Amino acid sequence: ADIVVLPGDGIGPEVAAAAVDVLQAVATRFGHRFSLHEHLIGGAAIDATGTPLPDATLAAARAADAVLLGAVGGPKWSDPNASVRPEQGLLAIRKALGLYANLRPTKPHPAALGASPIKPHLLAGVDLLVVRELTGGIYFGDKTRDADTASDLCRYSVHEIERVVRRACLLARDRRGHVISVDKANVLETSRLWRDVASRIARDEFPDITLEHQLVDSMAMHLLSKPRAFDVIVTENMFGDILTDEASMLAGSLGLLPSASLGDDAMPGAGSTASGRARGIFEPIHGSAPDIAGRGIANPYGAILSAALLLRHSLDLAREAACIEAAVDGALAAGVFTADLAQTGAAVSTREATTAVL
Amino acid sequence: ADIVVLPGDGIGPEVAAAAVDVLQAVATRFGHRFSLHEHLIGGAAIDATGTPLPDATLAAARAADAVLLGAVGGPKWSDPNASVRPEQGLLAIRKALGLYANLRPTKPHPAALGASPIKPHLLAGVDLLVVRELTGGIYFGDKTRDADTASDLCRYSVHEIERVVRRACLLARDRRGHVISVDKANVLETSRLWRDVASRIARDEFPDITLEHQLVDSMAMHLLSKPRAFDVIVTENMFGDILTDEASMLAGSLGLLPSASLGDDAMPGAGSTASGRARGIFEPIHGSAPDIAGRGIANPYGAILSAALLLRHSLDLAREAACIEAAVDGALAAGVFTADLAQTGAAVSTREATTAVL
Ligand SMILES: CC(C)[C@H](C(=O)O)[C@@H](O)C(=O)O
Ligand SMILES: CC(C)[C@H](C(=O)O)[C@@H](O)C(=O)O
Repeated sequence: ADIVVLPGDGIGPEVAAAAVDVLQAVATRFGHRFSLHEHLIGGAAIDATGTPLPDATLAAARAADAVLLGAVGGPKWSDPNASVRPEQGLLAIRKALGLYANLRPTKPHPAALGASPIKPHLLAGVDLLVVRELTGGIYFGDKTRDADTASDLCRYSVHEIERVVRRACLLARDRRGHVISVDKANVLETSRLWRDVASRIARDEFPDITLEHQLVDSMAMHLLSKPRAFDVIVTENMFGDILTDEASMLAGSLGLLPSASLGDDAMPGAGSTASGRARGIFEPIHGSAPDIAGRGIANPYGAILSAALLLRHSLDLAREAACIEAAVDGALAAGVFTADLAQTGAAVSTREATTAVL
Repeated sequence: ADIVVLPGDGIGPEVAAAAVDVLQAVATRFGHRFSLHEHLIGGAAIDATGTPLPDATLAAARAADAVLLGAVGGPKWSDPNASVRPEQGLLAIRKALGLYANLRPTKPHPAALGASPIKPHLLAGVDLLVVRELTGGIYFGDKTRDADTASDLCRYSVHEIERVVRRACLLARDRRGHVISVDKANVLETSRLWRDVASRIARDEFPDITLEHQLVDSMAMHLLSKPRAFDVIVTENMFGDILTDEASMLAGSLGLLPSASLGDDAMPGAGSTASGRARGIFEPIHGSAPDIAGRGIANPYGAILSAALLLRHSLDLAREAACIEAAVDGALAAGVFTADLAQTGAAVSTREATTAVL
């Protein structure tokens, strides 16, 4: 299998290297051949080529079976009014590859609860998956700016809503069969369309799945007050951005959390099951953390667990994915904590944490 | 002073009645005359008149010194595709009265921390105020819907941003002098304008205030991981809706939290200080809670504390406001808990809680 690696900026290269080591160990142990190729994205790409998503990177990503990404951005390129910014590379590659479904699972590890701001008794048994729409909504609508005003258009088509809700329902089928669709239907027209389409898809195509609706403001509360109540949460791009970062606090540290951004199956005829091979980018949900970059202390678990998602979703290697997940669980259970997780006592380095997983 | 009371739906009338009793007690004790008039809004207004904001209600609110509101909405009127909905009354009155600044203070009471999902050691000393823009953004932009797509336009003018940032800075001056402006400037054009305008206002008009910027996704985390770090948070309408509901979890119960929606000073020549008299609607941040409506068990503290904000912001009666706040503090310290707050032991009724405050 052909895997493109986009290390990016800040701690991106450090955690991507850890994930690559783990992928290589899996290849050896299970007798696979992964051919890994590094390309530029984000600030590193701006510095080298003047653009955050060079053509060579996009072409390689299109040709690959899957993409593993570190993180993009940093103070060097942080002026929001600059015409070229690292995040544009990330937004552009998601859009160009058609990766409309962003999966962000949160399952707090018992050993890491100390690092969460949430009371531990609320976290026992939490196992939720946010499916965020990733290539539509206000992120990609028309934008205007003049001296006196600015605007961003939030737009959704029936097709865009259908496909992400369908994906959420398919994923729920392999879990506890429950989907909550989050919107702001008491205010937004896009949310009223979202609600109608989600109801129809669930009713017509997924009689085995329970779908409920929830307003985004009340979801922001319930995520904290009763996180165990949720299985799959599906929502639009902007709400998903906010709610997934909020949900990450349940897990204790952002550094632990992986994500998968999936499009439709790259292979003809397939694409009808959640477990089929889908084109995707896999990245930890943390950012480039410029404050700790270069010090070798970043938490590599989120990137390593992203490699597991890559194996499961793009290469259909579920057993190998589970093996990585068990290894990370084991490292956490043994108290192998990087600085973001260590409440007391010494923290390990990125390398030591990776070695524990290996 | 002339105060319009809009009880609304569900538990709205129950908590509004509690706040009215407290206002009347303040009038007696401090020798004021408050003349209180009830009007219809929300579902109750739809049932009686066919519209969620009858002309008589709007005219009375315009003529009054301040408006006290209960809550609107309920399952009876909950179809998001209905052409007439209770929330429209709330959105329309905010807009018609020009109430562009929604103040939502959160200061967890030590006695109520048991009800919060957040670990108590993180909550000690938390005292934050969210100032949410309330009459612009995606709530009020053009909307479209056809068979295949829907859209909502998010639009902000320089003027709309200036006035709410200015109000946040004025409020910070009476607090700890620190403002965080929350946006999504790495993606939205409206946020880039917001950031530019906020920076300029702070630099040119408030050299004594520290203003920093934060992305909304990272704010959703930091509100939980380091809530003590915040003083005043200013943000646009939609982000404010989500973040204030999230922040309410710091206080243990939504039922405790008041809000003030302020316009510019109703009196000519004034409006330049945060403590001047401003036209406003004052309401608890909780909803109509149809599940407990009519049972006399709703938490009245949020509505009562909203009456305190009314006295402070619209009637310039700071001493009277502080007196109410001290009475609520005292009731909480004495363990007078409604069902939403009581962890163990018996909960008191709305009436008993109100009597404790009185
Ligand atoms: C960097 C930014 C554009 C991005 C987003 O908002 O999608 C990030 O916050 C994320 O969630 O992956
Ligand atoms: C009822 C609804 C329209 C309203 C809003 O979103 O503004 C409510 O959630 C609030 O925050 O006051």
